[in-house]
Amino acid sequence: MIPKARADASLVVTARGWEDPSVRVRIDLAYDGGGFHGWARQPGLRTVQGELEESLDTVLRTRGSSLTVAGRTDAGVHARGQVAHLDVADDVLAAVAGRSADTPVDALLRRMNGLLGPDVRLRRVSVAPEGFDARFSASWRRYVYRIADRLECVDPLARGQVLARPRSLDEERMNQAAVGLLGEHDFAAFCRKRAGATTIRTLLDLVWTREPDGLLIATVRADAFCHSMVRALVGCLIEVGEARREPAWAVEVLTRQRRHPAVRVARAHGLTLEEVRYPPDDEVAAQAQRARVVRTLG
Amino acid sequence: MIPKARADASLVVTARGWEDPSVRVRIDLAYDGGGFHGWARQPGLRTVQGELEESLDTVLRTRGSSLTVAGRTDAGVHARGQVAHLDVADDVLAAVAGRSADTPVDALLRRMNGLLGPDVRLRRVSVAPEGFDARFSASWRRYVYRIADRLECVDPLARGQVLARPRSLDEERMNQAAVGLLGEHDFAAFCRKRAGATTIRTLLDLVWTREPDGLLIATVRADAFCHSMVRALVGCLIEVGEARREPAWAVEVLTRQRRHPAVRVARAHGLTLEEVRYPPDDEVAAQAQRARVVRTLG
Repeated sequence: MIPKARADASLVVTARGWEDPSVRVRIDLAYDGGGFHGWARQPGLRTVQGELEESLDTVLRTRGSSLTVAGRTDAGVHARGQVAHLDVADDVLAAVAGRSADTPVDALLRRMNGLLGPDVRLRRVSVAPEGFDARFSASWRRYVYRIADRLECVDPLARGQVLARPRSLDEERMNQAAVGLLGEHDFAAFCRKRAGATTIRTLLDLVWTREPDGLLIATVRADAFCHSMVRALVGCLIEVGEARREPAWAVEVLTRQRRHPAVRVARAHGLTLEEVRYPPDDEVAAQAQRARVVRTLG
Repeated sequence: MIPKARADASLVVTARGWEDPSVRVRIDLAYDGGGFHGWARQPGLRTVQGELEESLDTVLRTRGSSLTVAGRTDAGVHARGQVAHLDVADDVLAAVAGRSADTPVDALLRRMNGLLGPDVRLRRVSVAPEGFDARFSASWRRYVYRIADRLECVDPLARGQVLARPRSLDEERMNQAAVGLLGEHDFAAFCRKRAGATTIRTLLDLVWTREPDGLLIATVRADAFCHSMVRALVGCLIEVGEARREPAWAVEVLTRQRRHPAVRVARAHGLTLEEVRYPPDDEVAAQAQRARVVRTLG
């Protein structure tokens, strides 16, 4: 907790090796995806990871800060409950607080928020429990997709995070269709296939509810998601909700295990990663081990 | 309901006089105030009234459309439940539907939303009841002011409509202070005085509540508000909430009846006009008559 001299801290950076004692830091954050080309760093584009890692390098006086994230959101997708982790050398972290009365993690939180734009906010920075991995320790992710399908509930203040549809959707049909998709399945029909990665996932919740203000929202929860899965599921159910397809069609698409041309991937701005849930601290290591095995089943 | 020929409709416009049979149209609308210099038309600036009246002229093929509004919001203030009215000649309105199956008011709604930017949406257009006046028939207006005074509830997705404060506010103190302001008073201390207009208002509600997500919100309801009144009330209570002043100070300020230098007008973007309430249709005329008398008491 005692701040180190500057020369000492930079020595750590330049001479840093695998043997350095380090601490894993958990970062809880939220962002408006509208101004980002998604989470993942891409050269020349503004991404959440790029923006964060650059600010981390500035605050920590390091180079090459590398974040691991729970949900790699696509361009335009928002997050309220995103979680990432970062490994930092003990003395590099200790140096962040400087002469302030803050703990190193609180100083990191405060200084990062001072540097970042208003469309991304760190909400909490904490020392992660032993064995924690932001990606692999997660028990499940919860996304919400929001649709304004009635004029009375179109809210200009929420237009950046709600899909506006001119036709009213039938949420009962959509829920009938959704039930057949629950459980463990190969979701290849709703994913962009990547070599060497399984598309088997366990869908825990997929339910449409009508908010008091008339907004139609889908809560989608799974152990993990593959690329574009939530938006493809939503796109499929919109077809059913607008009565172009029968509810049974969703399971037909699933069983086919190939992308169906009528399933359009719903627009990104309606989607928000709301929550990532982890098991109790003493189980995060075991959970990470299980997830690593499952996720690499091809 | 039968669409008129184009030549006929323009004849109405050019030859229009006070004797033309006309209909009063009520418009319910919502807007994101962030991109507007307030409600009231100002030359050379983007205002909600200016934008709407221009679009009305286009859709109605008229010139000089003139709206009367319930709440003249300042630059940057939002509205979800704004109400305005417009008088339109019968045949001008009938011509809007053209060959569509829509009623004239539905056609006006649809065509206006097609023209307007995404930051302002008409939610409902209807024929107003006899004697209705968007401004004078209102029984009360309800505003909400939103503050994120804890880092955990700062939401980048809502940053355009929530005031972020670095220090935590004590809502119990703020509510103690607010109670003394309720009822009928001369709110000159919280208003920009205008010649020939009373600053006597009846404050029906001023209460702070903590949302489940940690957001602190003020619900402020009155028969009517004078200029900058809600934001000055909020500014006063923030002084109390941050413990720079005692709760009793709010009543002292009120009693003084002059603007107090320590009362800062809270920033516009935290404020939203949520609702304007009118009496039943058969009472709107009488309500308008009463309000006109009260409002011109000097």
